[in-house]
Order: sequence, then structure tokens, then C-alpha cells
Amino acid sequence: MKVLVNERGAERLLNRHLWVFRRDVLSGPEEAGLFPVYWGKRFLAWALYNPKSDLTVRAFRFRPAADPVEALLENLDRALKRRLPHLEADPEGGYRLVHAEGDLLPGLVVDAYAGHGVVQVTAGALEPLLPRIAEALRPHLKSLLARGDVKVRTLEGLPLEVKPLFGPVPEHVVIQEGRVRYWVDLYTGQKTGAFLDQRENRVYMERFSGEKALDVFSYHGSFALHLALGFQEVVAVDSSEDALERAKENARLNEVHLRVRTVRANAFDFLREEEKAGKSYDLVVLDPPAFAKRKQDLERAYRAYKEVNLRAIKLLREGGILATASCSHHLTEPLFMQMVQEAAQDAHRLLRLVHKGGQPFDHPVLLNVPETQYLKFAVFQVVG
Amino acid sequence: MKVLVNERGAERLLNRHLWVFRRDVLSGPEEAGLFPVYWGKRFLAWALYNPKSDLTVRAFRFRPAADPVEALLENLDRALKRRLPHLEADPEGGYRLVHAEGDLLPGLVVDAYAGHGVVQVTAGALEPLLPRIAEALRPHLKSLLARGDVKVRTLEGLPLEVKPLFGPVPEHVVIQEGRVRYWVDLYTGQKTGAFLDQRENRVYMERFSGEKALDVFSYHGSFALHLALGFQEVVAVDSSEDALERAKENARLNEVHLRVRTVRANAFDFLREEEKAGKSYDLVVLDPPAFAKRKQDLERAYRAYKEVNLRAIKLLREGGILATASCSHHLTEPLFMQMVQEAAQDAHRLLRLVHKGGQPFDHPVLLNVPETQYLKFAVFQVVG
Repeated sequence: MKVLVNERGAERLLNRHLWVFRRDVLSGPEEAGLFPVYWGKRFLAWALYNPKSDLTVRAFRFRPAADPVEALLENLDRALKRRLPHLEADPEGGYRLVHAEGDLLPGLVVDAYAGHGVVQVTAGALEPLLPRIAEALRPHLKSLLARGDVKVRTLEGLPLEVKPLFGPVPEHVVIQEGRVRYWVDLYTGQKTGAFLDQRENRVYMERFSGEKALDVFSYHGSFALHLALGFQEVVAVDSSEDALERAKENARLNEVHLRVRTVRANAFDFLREEEKAGKSYDLVVLDPPAFAKRKQDLERAYRAYKEVNLRAIKLLREGGILATASCSHHLTEPLFMQMVQEAAQDAHRLLRLVHKGGQPFDHPVLLNVPETQYLKFAVFQVVG
Repeated sequence: MKVLVNERGAERLLNRHLWVFRRDVLSGPEEAGLFPVYWGKRFLAWALYNPKSDLTVRAFRFRPAADPVEALLENLDRALKRRLPHLEADPEGGYRLVHAEGDLLPGLVVDAYAGHGVVQVTAGALEPLLPRIAEALRPHLKSLLARGDVKVRTLEGLPLEVKPLFGPVPEHVVIQEGRVRYWVDLYTGQKTGAFLDQRENRVYMERFSGEKALDVFSYHGSFALHLALGFQEVVAVDSSEDALERAKENARLNEVHLRVRTVRANAFDFLREEEKAGKSYDLVVLDPPAFAKRKQDLERAYRAYKEVNLRAIKLLREGGILATASCSHHLTEPLFMQMVQEAAQDAHRLLRLVHKGGQPFDHPVLLNVPETQYLKFAVFQVVG
């Protein structure tokens, strides 16, 4: 039982991309599973295969393997080994234990929140292996919840369901991040609970201090809480009342609620009105949602990113700090930097690059798989 | 006395670039000096002005100033304040105190090596201010040497000369960098002595260990010395016998000379021959000189960078580490990453991004002045 691909599919795997789409698959088994992929007689890779999915082939190993399940579990073991020193040093923290393609484990995401695990399977071929994956995770976690409630599972022919796999799964846990603590909802949070990919970037911001800071697209108050350690007043803006309620709870948890003021508003409108009112800030954080979810949205998204950045730059005093992010894969890093540059030029402000962040070690980027790179983060100071 | 620029020149300064070339200068004084720049009646900036130079206007302040010399010295003060905590915490280290445009001090570079300063002036308008600059530096340095021996000074109508400005200037000093010490020649070293811009990247590499590492374009053994702390054997390759002699002295200074083997060779030939001989390494560092010094060299340079990267990747065992750099401004970061990606694809190796470095805090990058960004540094692991 093997999968045959055409020359274009073979070239992708030889270039060490992990994906071959259906159009480049010549033949294969009728059921989802782990199968070797060949180009004629040439072995290319072991892959997760699902004839029901347009993303038919997702490679996880480029060398032959006697037992493909063991090979897959080796990748899991390697992913865990890279995280364990961090989990041990920081047991109350939040970490991504497995980041799908980035860890050569397509279709598998595992997060740990203060030792409580959340697993998400989005590959049909992987679902039958979930019990073995749970066993491999058991020594490192107090509990494990399977969050099979993401829509993409239906494309793989998988049911939508949420079920505990072991241990008593708490509804909420508190995680520690730098000098801040957060509530995390294991059952209901977006993206299995929190945005761990910004962890290091949020902690980085703890080094700044001053009078007035602004956190735009604040969600659960994520950046605002870290800023409240150093600033007299932090304004947290979000369009969701629920998100801001949680931001307030998080602020109380950290005893910074007297410094954090939440504002429910559309970010674009808020920034425009602050400018009109002649307001000025020592620091602004911009952590917008992905404006460009599809490639065809890019041009419109670019303008939207540029507008919020332009308005934020105008609100900064000389010497002030701009921390700006984008999680749209389609807005590549060069485009992201160009966008901020154009915003700075239009605002007639000179920006010095203070820091460039990105994805933390537990959200690995594969050079040959550009899709694994999505998070940009840069910090600037207005110097003229 | 003021400088008038045309609309294109005005647009550059409004966009907060610092430079206006001669073709966009309408009129100005006959002598070099500090002058305000106008577009019609609109004040744009204070600038270093030199009618003898093609780079006629180099702005250093975008707000009005009663005393331009004081304004320039304020920039110097700001640059020093950002470095002082590091100098105090690390008095035996090497730091760039002033990085020209990056610190809004065009034409001025100051380095400190274990407290001994080296200053380089490459702007005609700045030369008369050198005594005041030296006075501002005096409290922070044991000695100061003016290295006026760079050719670009002749374009500014300045003499070529090397002279001590204060303190007894030693011929050599030893600086500490991470867990390594180096000899630095104050009078004769390239780029006023050492390549401080790679300091943080070299120290970063101290975290790796294994059996066999390779440092290509090793110069004074810079990366090799840090690697020798963790690897059994480090091969340092350079085409210059003099550079390798100094590398050996540095290795003895650090008592790692038994682990560092120097090889005088052309890097391309060496890599090719190692591949032919079936050699393999746990880690390879590539720190080539600027292959693309001019924009028209870019295509050829791209191919040269790709070739050394391709050959280096082929020499790595699975799990091995590639640390690769480029200091060509014209090879932009996106091009640099694309070049490594193509090399990886051609080698049929999958690379995980481990770390992205760049210029350290004392070599600041201005977003609006792309010319200030030149150093790329990235570390990858072979994962398939």
C-alpha cells in the first residue's frame, strides 16, 4: 500500500515541503492512514494520507522507517524533549508542546497550561493514533482534554467533539507568564485557550515603563497586564465586551485593576478620536487579528494594517515606543516591515528598530515550509 | 546661511530619510558645516552639509534648534546613555558607542575596547567638532585614538591621519566577549579593530556543543573561539595567513588551541573538497565578507552566498546546525532568507529556524533609512 505522486508532487517533497495536494497525487489507498510516498520507484517520504482531504499528503519523515507509527511517535518524543526543560523550569507556564508541521507532526497541536494539556487533531490519519499520543503525553501532564471542535475536522471526515482523555480536567486554570498571571478556559477559549505564540513578545514588553500606555486589540488584556507593571495608566481597547470582562478579571488577579482602563470600541474609530482629541501616549501596542486570512484579502488588509499603525505612530510622543504585530501569514515579514515603514513616512516620524520578535521556540518555523511562519512582532522608538 | 532643497529632497526628509544627494540641493553655503535645510520657507531639518560631497546633506535633527552644535552633542549624549549600562556591567567588553546615522550622528563612529576608544570621522562638517566630541567621550574612556585612515575621508576633503586624542593609547588590548577573550589592534585592525556587530551572534553560539564544528571565513577565529568551548574539534578556515596567525594567538589566549585547527584555504574549494572526502560536521558557521559591495554585484553575490550555504548544508549530519550570516546591505533580509531556502531545497534538506539574529543594540537600525540595516544572521537545524 503506497501513494504515488507526479513529478510536481515529487519536486515538492524533494524540496522538503511537507504537503502534496490532491491534484499531484496519482494513486493511493482508499482509506486514510500512514503510507509511504513514491515517485515511480523512488521513495520520497512517509506521510499522513487522506483521500478525503484536498491536502492529501502531509509528510512527517523523509527517511525510510520500519514502523511508521513508531517513527511518528519519535517525532512526538523529539518535540516533547525540546519543551521539557522549559516545562520543568516553569511548571505554571503555558507552552505549545506540539506545533503540527513545525514539529513534523502535521494535524497535531498540543498545548500545556500549568500542566493541563489540550490536544487538537485535524488529520484523519491521526485520529486512530490519539490513544497512543495521549499515552506518550501522560507522564508530562496532569490532565488532557481533546478539543475536537474545530471546523476543519469536518473536511477530514472527523466528528466534532470535546472529551477528556485522562485526569480531572479543570474548567479554568491560571497560568504564569513573566510577572503576570492569566485565566485560561480549557473548554471554550479561542485557539485552545490563549495566544501562546505571543508569550515571549508579551514578556519582552515588561521592560518598559512610563505614564500612559495603550493596548489596542487587547482581547483578554494580554499585553495590557504586562504593561500595567510599569505604566501608571494602561488603556486596553477591544471590540468585545466579553473579552474585556475577562481582561478586568485578569487585571484583578494581578492586582493592577486600578491602572488598567478598558474601552469597548472599534480600534480604528478609537485611534481616530484619540488623535482628534490631541491625546498622546508613551507606548502603544498593536496586536490586531489576522486581517488577511486569505491571499485575495491581502491588499485590503495591508491598507488596514497601515492605517492602525499610522494612527498609533501619530499618538506617540517623541521618544515613545510602538510595539506592532501581525499574525497574517499572507502579510510576509518583508511586507510587514514595509507597511510600518510607509506608516512612519506618512506620519513624518523617524523610527529606530528596538527589537524584532516572532514565533517562540515552541511554535517552530520550517524554512522549507513558508506556511509555518506567520507571526511578526517588532518594537520601535520614535527618534525624530 | 541655509540649504535649499527641491521637492524630491524635501520628500526624502519629510519621509525621515537622513540623506539628500547633491542633485536635489538647490543652493547652500560654499563651506562645509551645520546648516538648517529648507524647502522654500518650510524648515525641514538640521544637517551636516558638505558641498564637496555627493552626499551633500545628512540630517541629524528634525526639530528646530537654537544651537546646532549643542543639538548634535545632545544626540551624542543620547547615544552614550544607551551604552553606559552595558559598559559599566561589562567594562572589558567591546561596544560601538556611536554608530553614525543609526544614532543620528552621520559621519561619526566611536568604538570602545575594554575602555579604550577609537573614533572615526567621515564627514567634513564634523571634523572641526572633533575636540568637543572627544571632551564628551573623555569621562567614559581611558584613551581615545582618531583613526582618520579611511579612504572615504578624501571624498570629504579630509586628510588621512591617525592620532591619539587623549590618554596613553595601547597598541593592543584584550577584550572579553561572552566566555571568550580576543586581541584587538587599535591602530591597524580592519573596521577599527574587530567586528563588534557580530558580538551577540558569536556569544549566542556558545550554547552549542558536540564533536566537530567548522567556522568558514574565520578571520581572527571569531566564531571558532566560542565554538571551541563546546566542541571537541573546531576547524577554522580563512584565506589569510595573517588572520589565522591571530586566530591561533587568540586560541592560545583562551587555552583552546588544542581544539582549534586552522586551515588556510579558499572557502569554496575547502567546502567542495570536504564534501568529496565525505566529511561531516555537527555545526557549520558561515560568516563571509560582503560579496555584494555594490548593487550591480548582487546577482553574482547571490549565487556565491547560495553556493557556500548549499555546500555547508551538505556537510551537516541530520540534526546538525547551520549558522549563516551576510553583511551585504544589498542582499536584503528577504533575499538572504530566500537564498538559504533555495540552498536547503537544492540540498534536499529540511531546515528548522532556531534563531534569527541581526545587528546588536549598539548598531541601531533606522526603519526610514534602509541603508542602516546590513547584518543578517540566522541559525537552523537540519530536521529532515
